[in-house]
Amino acid sequence: MKKVSTIVPKVTPNKYFTKNAAKDVWSLTNESAAIAAKNSRNVGREMINLGQGFFSYAPPQFAIKEAQRALEIPLVNQYSPTRGRLSLIDSLVKFYTPFYNTKLEAANFSVFTGANEAIFSILIGLLNPGDEVIVFEPFFDQYIPNIELSGGKVVYVPITPPKNLDTRVTKGEEWQIDWDSLQAAMNSKTKAIIINTPHNPIGKVFTEPELRRLGDICVKNNVVIISDEVYEHLYFKDSFTRIATLSPEIGQLTLTVGSAGKSFAATGWRIGWALSLNQELLSYAAKAHTRICFASPSPLQEAVANAFNDAEKVEYFKETRLQYIRKYEIFTNVLNELGLPYTEPEGTYFILVNFSKVKIPPDYKYPEELLNKAKDFRISYWLMNELGVVAIPPTEFYIKEHEHAAENLLRFAVCKDDEYLEKAAERLMLLKEYL
Amino acid sequence: MKKVSTIVPKVTPNKYFTKNAAKDVWSLTNESAAIAAKNSRNVGREMINLGQGFFSYAPPQFAIKEAQRALEIPLVNQYSPTRGRLSLIDSLVKFYTPFYNTKLEAANFSVFTGANEAIFSILIGLLNPGDEVIVFEPFFDQYIPNIELSGGKVVYVPITPPKNLDTRVTKGEEWQIDWDSLQAAMNSKTKAIIINTPHNPIGKVFTEPELRRLGDICVKNNVVIISDEVYEHLYFKDSFTRIATLSPEIGQLTLTVGSAGKSFAATGWRIGWALSLNQELLSYAAKAHTRICFASPSPLQEAVANAFNDAEKVEYFKETRLQYIRKYEIFTNVLNELGLPYTEPEGTYFILVNFSKVKIPPDYKYPEELLNKAKDFRISYWLMNELGVVAIPPTEFYIKEHEHAAENLLRFAVCKDDEYLEKAAERLMLLKEYL
Repeated sequence: MKKVSTIVPKVTPNKYFTKNAAKDVWSLTNESAAIAAKNSRNVGREMINLGQGFFSYAPPQFAIKEAQRALEIPLVNQYSPTRGRLSLIDSLVKFYTPFYNTKLEAANFSVFTGANEAIFSILIGLLNPGDEVIVFEPFFDQYIPNIELSGGKVVYVPITPPKNLDTRVTKGEEWQIDWDSLQAAMNSKTKAIIINTPHNPIGKVFTEPELRRLGDICVKNNVVIISDEVYEHLYFKDSFTRIATLSPEIGQLTLTVGSAGKSFAATGWRIGWALSLNQELLSYAAKAHTRICFASPSPLQEAVANAFNDAEKVEYFKETRLQYIRKYEIFTNVLNELGLPYTEPEGTYFILVNFSKVKIPPDYKYPEELLNKAKDFRISYWLMNELGVVAIPPTEFYIKEHEHAAENLLRFAVCKDDEYLEKAAERLMLLKEYL
Repeated sequence: MKKVSTIVPKVTPNKYFTKNAAKDVWSLTNESAAIAAKNSRNVGREMINLGQGFFSYAPPQFAIKEAQRALEIPLVNQYSPTRGRLSLIDSLVKFYTPFYNTKLEAANFSVFTGANEAIFSILIGLLNPGDEVIVFEPFFDQYIPNIELSGGKVVYVPITPPKNLDTRVTKGEEWQIDWDSLQAAMNSKTKAIIINTPHNPIGKVFTEPELRRLGDICVKNNVVIISDEVYEHLYFKDSFTRIATLSPEIGQLTLTVGSAGKSFAATGWRIGWALSLNQELLSYAAKAHTRICFASPSPLQEAVANAFNDAEKVEYFKETRLQYIRKYEIFTNVLNELGLPYTEPEGTYFILVNFSKVKIPPDYKYPEELLNKAKDFRISYWLMNELGVVAIPPTEFYIKEHEHAAENLLRFAVCKDDEYLEKAAERLMLLKEYL
């Protein structure tokens, strides 16, 4: 067979993708890590990857078994209803009803192909050209293209970091929404706001007073609240507050997003859902989903439906929380020993660590593509090349003007098995040389 | 727990969804069928549903086993690369290379969450506001919102039906693209054209001369060809022509879409792919997918990767074709006996049957929502209520101005097990009373 060489036609793609051609943080970090693995410092030792937030282990055995069983039912391999399999909707109704002040019903739920497609569908269902959506910084990077591809304009409101972040261990509650900026951002074009709690990458769980204040501002301005609660089971405070439950008025404006991937350590299953007390508001997201994906994977929906029941029997979510408290301990023990400041994790599986005390040689050589990036990109590069540890530079989750707030931080993911975290802790002890 | 009653806020959703609030043909048909099942004619007999194109049976056992095995590999439950698992890309490279005039490579493929999301991602990746996309009538209904939600404008070009469709059995090749309309539709805003072969609902497989003529027009006008080939294994002529292989110039403008759901009788798995000789063109669809779904279901991707290898060993695709020739025989035997005209199926699992010879009582009572619909909606209603057989009215796949072309037709799906088709044939014999 021959290689065809022909004149390639000029086709102008969606300009959004030519304007936003910069490499994303995931590609940049993964590619750098692949190169770093081959340098003389790393040859002969394992790279420790705490970058991307994927679990290094399997979903619970009961969930796997449910998926295997589901595959054996012939019609569970065919299309599901576009709003989700009735079995999954039933499980969601049962699971969430105790957390809400009302008896939920099927029409309060819709299933999506992962939480990402849920948020995209919500935005496509909601936005008209020129509508504004408020996003807090630091943000989950997918929110931005999701809003812009839906015809919306992103308005950024900072979460102000604690004072003296460089010198001490801080608490989630010290990261505070900039309420003045939020008030200033609200105008007649403001259609929605996205809040993420527990918060990636801060690890903060928003408190009831914070969420009430936010919710009341949204009610006053008739702004839809998209509450990204995919880490709802990974909180390590006494309780986790769901904004939609704080008042009937807030509930009517809120669309809450959940994720089977995060809840059952199965990020590759692509099952998510949205829940709203306002059935009409939810219906537009469902209509968008019908056109985007038509329906979500049937056997995995069926598996999640049954896994919710199994999870209850073995107190799976509570057990997972206890396991994560232990994982964080492994990690923060070494930080404490090194004297590296961090923000105490209250939720998610991330932790922000401050590297300003780490003395990186000022003449260290970086690749050209990192020179116009914030300092944390260079810290991340240095760390993977010198210690063989991969972490994510969080300024990627800020706009240029505000990125200085996070330039000394790196985000580590602890959703790995304990043995791996022990190895990571041991490796990080090598930082002693640089303090 | 109490029911919360509160003032529901007024939120204007994406106007696309309020402007297009009419019930789709699937909801309309399914809801009518549920009501029809309870009438006095149907009580005590099974409803025969040949409406929606879902398989009434399981995927092949080898595919099920592969999915069950994939679930046991821990990391196969976590995120896959956004462009698809390497194992699946490898299988696709191996499978498609013999059909193309060049050695394909990984960058010629990208995996999507079903063919629907593939087409949506292609359009989002490609279209800028005001771009026009040509669609042939009859069309697959999802194309229209997919184009419009991507900011494009749909331009309709009819496929002209054979003459005397009401009185004789016709051939697929008698359904001809209206070439004059196609030429007239091409202008500087024309960005892409969607072609579907084998064609739903006609059952036509486009011939090489037709595709070459179409491809050359697209090359001349620099128009991207989106070739929806999801029924590529379900053709019953000697061969199936892939437009991208007809010339290097056509190949560089073509994005071809395939589907594991259709290929492996697993419509609920939601695994599809796009293939292009033009890697850059494909890259924009992949970038859109990253934002829409991020990645596709991992265990099902892995299963499809391995199922391709299993399929080769047992000549699965050839076997399936033989099975479908038999399924169509069961169905057309009764049509021939009744003397009802149809278009000879060359591909897909659909068949268009002409009902103009069937004498439906002129005073038959229809629900109000069908009175402003084309005649085929009323034929469909009559058939499900009087015979308990469900079929789809194909004028749904036309714009209002052109729907008369299909007003005497119904679309039947034969992707059912043979026993069910025998029952359908027996039931349809009741039409004798009305001829």
